[in-house]
Amino acid sequence: MPLTITDALFDGERVGLRCEDGAIAALGPGVAAEAGDEVIDAAGAHLVPPLVNGHTHAAMTLFRGSGGDLPLMPWLEKKIWPIEAKLEAEDVYWGARLACAEMIRSGTTRFWDMYWHPEATARAVTDAGIRAAIGAPLFDATSSFEELRDSALRSLEALAGCGPLVTPALAPHAIYTVSERSLRWIAELSAERELPVQIHLSETEKEVQDCLAEHGERPAHYLDRLGLLGERTVLAHGVWLDREELALIAERGATVVSNPAANMKLAVGAAFDYPAAKTAGVAVGLGTDGAGSNDSLDLLADLKLFALAQKHAAGDPTAIDAAEAWAVATGGRAPRLGATELRPGAPADFLLLRRGSPELGIGDLTSDLVYAAAGASVDTTVVAGRVLMQGGELPELEEIVAKAAERARRLDL
Amino acid sequence: MPLTITDALFDGERVGLRCEDGAIAALGPGVAAEAGDEVIDAAGAHLVPPLVNGHTHAAMTLFRGSGGDLPLMPWLEKKIWPIEAKLEAEDVYWGARLACAEMIRSGTTRFWDMYWHPEATARAVTDAGIRAAIGAPLFDATSSFEELRDSALRSLEALAGCGPLVTPALAPHAIYTVSERSLRWIAELSAERELPVQIHLSETEKEVQDCLAEHGERPAHYLDRLGLLGERTVLAHGVWLDREELALIAERGATVVSNPAANMKLAVGAAFDYPAAKTAGVAVGLGTDGAGSNDSLDLLADLKLFALAQKHAAGDPTAIDAAEAWAVATGGRAPRLGATELRPGAPADFLLLRRGSPELGIGDLTSDLVYAAAGASVDTTVVAGRVLMQGGELPELEEIVAKAAERARRLDL
Repeated sequence: MPLTITDALFDGERVGLRCEDGAIAALGPGVAAEAGDEVIDAAGAHLVPPLVNGHTHAAMTLFRGSGGDLPLMPWLEKKIWPIEAKLEAEDVYWGARLACAEMIRSGTTRFWDMYWHPEATARAVTDAGIRAAIGAPLFDATSSFEELRDSALRSLEALAGCGPLVTPALAPHAIYTVSERSLRWIAELSAERELPVQIHLSETEKEVQDCLAEHGERPAHYLDRLGLLGERTVLAHGVWLDREELALIAERGATVVSNPAANMKLAVGAAFDYPAAKTAGVAVGLGTDGAGSNDSLDLLADLKLFALAQKHAAGDPTAIDAAEAWAVATGGRAPRLGATELRPGAPADFLLLRRGSPELGIGDLTSDLVYAAAGASVDTTVVAGRVLMQGGELPELEEIVAKAAERARRLDL
Repeated sequence: MPLTITDALFDGERVGLRCEDGAIAALGPGVAAEAGDEVIDAAGAHLVPPLVNGHTHAAMTLFRGSGGDLPLMPWLEKKIWPIEAKLEAEDVYWGARLACAEMIRSGTTRFWDMYWHPEATARAVTDAGIRAAIGAPLFDATSSFEELRDSALRSLEALAGCGPLVTPALAPHAIYTVSERSLRWIAELSAERELPVQIHLSETEKEVQDCLAEHGERPAHYLDRLGLLGERTVLAHGVWLDREELALIAERGATVVSNPAANMKLAVGAAFDYPAAKTAGVAVGLGTDGAGSNDSLDLLADLKLFALAQKHAAGDPTAIDAAEAWAVATGGRAPRLGATELRPGAPADFLLLRRGSPELGIGDLTSDLVYAAAGASVDTTVVAGRVLMQGGELPELEEIVAKAAERARRLDL
């Protein structure tokens, strides 16, 4: 059924927005509902584009609050990897459902995911009604090229035909867990099938030092030499990228996704240098990383952290302003992540903010969104013209939380 | 009317909590309602102590979103001071009512305030039903000792008799805006009347350099020489305190309040060194600072920022853990700020968290509160046995937001 939003506030104007077949059919001051439309009276609520979470591991909601404030490697070795060995598809499904619920509640309608049982995440995404680019993590540090290749092809088969909300992707874990041979093969497969590639890159200083020692070049140059740095590449973290790497990434048209909360929580030692990346012309998005190392999926909250961390790192409160930070979080600085522009013909993905939110009532809207709002400021979330949340309430939330908690108990965290 | 909370989850046990005459009369597994009690069935919701906001300027909610991402001095000179010259008591009242509403919604029940027309803030606090230590900002950089003295005495008179929720305080603005003579007089008045003293200290490196140049000593030593560093002293910021200053502050029993969001937003260049302060034995609390430079008053959100910023600054994810960060935010590391312990005889100030919050359903509660929750996770806020919010809804919120917005428009920000 077509959906029409009436009396929304958009760029300072009272507008109507009509959705048909998952796209925005009309948007503007005169736009009204037609007979038979589903109608939402926004009653003056702000209409804004949704957020894009450029890097997460959705099902890791199951691991939330069991990190014990540990450093990265002990956390992975003592907590995460032993449990992941026990994961079933049904665990991943409910963990990812919970993640989708939290993202819908906090205004994210599209995310980039790297996790085990990707077909379970795809099913969760489809059931939840949001969008995701999904890839199985590919490793061959403890296996072989053949095993990695088979695993990659199996996951792509499982993700094929998951419908329009799911984009299959390749997700080599990192340059230190995937061999050169496998990375070259992934580059070829990505080119052949036009698949996006997600990879963790330059998250820790040790990764950079090891790459220099082993390959004689820094991580971005190494990836480039293997043919894996292109327009379809999404690099998560990029904390330790230097200016030459940023220039190369810009030239190749790859995207970097900053994950400030997880980087600070794991104390990786520096902040991704947004002003330098912007100067170099790098496409940049924002991510939460998994709930195991954040531990929230509220990108509207992390957006503030991102802006504040950039100001702090630069020692300059003008290092990034609210409009720029908002553009980054909504995908406006990284076209390949899948931003939503609110205009006729675009996918009907959008948010209505809560009317009368104390955080949004007084100052400049963009400034308030970045520095004062959080996920709870979102009232209504729509994806492909379908209302996923209204009035801040997600009808199936209670069941999802209960099921995810049950799966987490099973894993004996 | 006495209030009884039944079936709450506290420290892993199902308990009842009965309040009488503003205090906790009984707390434990067997505690039940008595005839005539107001009863809230917590239905298994978590019962936790409330947060203490150790430093803010409540009425600056009126200035939210008008900072324009400026550095401190241009922000004050171009935006804030010209507007503050036009402030009326009624502006401050509605700005502070909005601040109280936001704090009640996000689990803060006590705050430390420094702002103009303190009697208007006191009225707002009393009407809202929360607690605050309130002082008028005292300056004599552009006036005289006599004017400062008269202003201080007038504000104390206006704050006297404001009832049990309000603690009158002295609030000299900073060492660079108040003369030595006035600071000495404030120290004497504080000792004579047993009044707490709030002062901004060591917020910027320039303040430290100027203090060294003018007085030959660092800010904490300077304050100490004037007799103003004692158990009643609350130092906001403390970003640039060195180890000797921290040792002196610990010895004198003064309190430092860290404001990580405002410090990062204004890019003051460093983070308050919590591990060093803890080692030195300094009492430490957490604050939001005013909504003009944060721009939120959600201390439960800033608590995460505080922990993450400490890990990041130390380059060590174990620099502070969730339990320690939670203790700081609830006043448990700064007795003079007025923490609430949940035990019979203590003031009946407490929170119930939302049942079925997706952020609180799986991991360790304290970890989830610090790293995953935000203000919206609070369901019920009680102060002095009076229910200020239940079900996340503040009945008078709409009116307060409208009135504050009206006052902000009047100021033509």
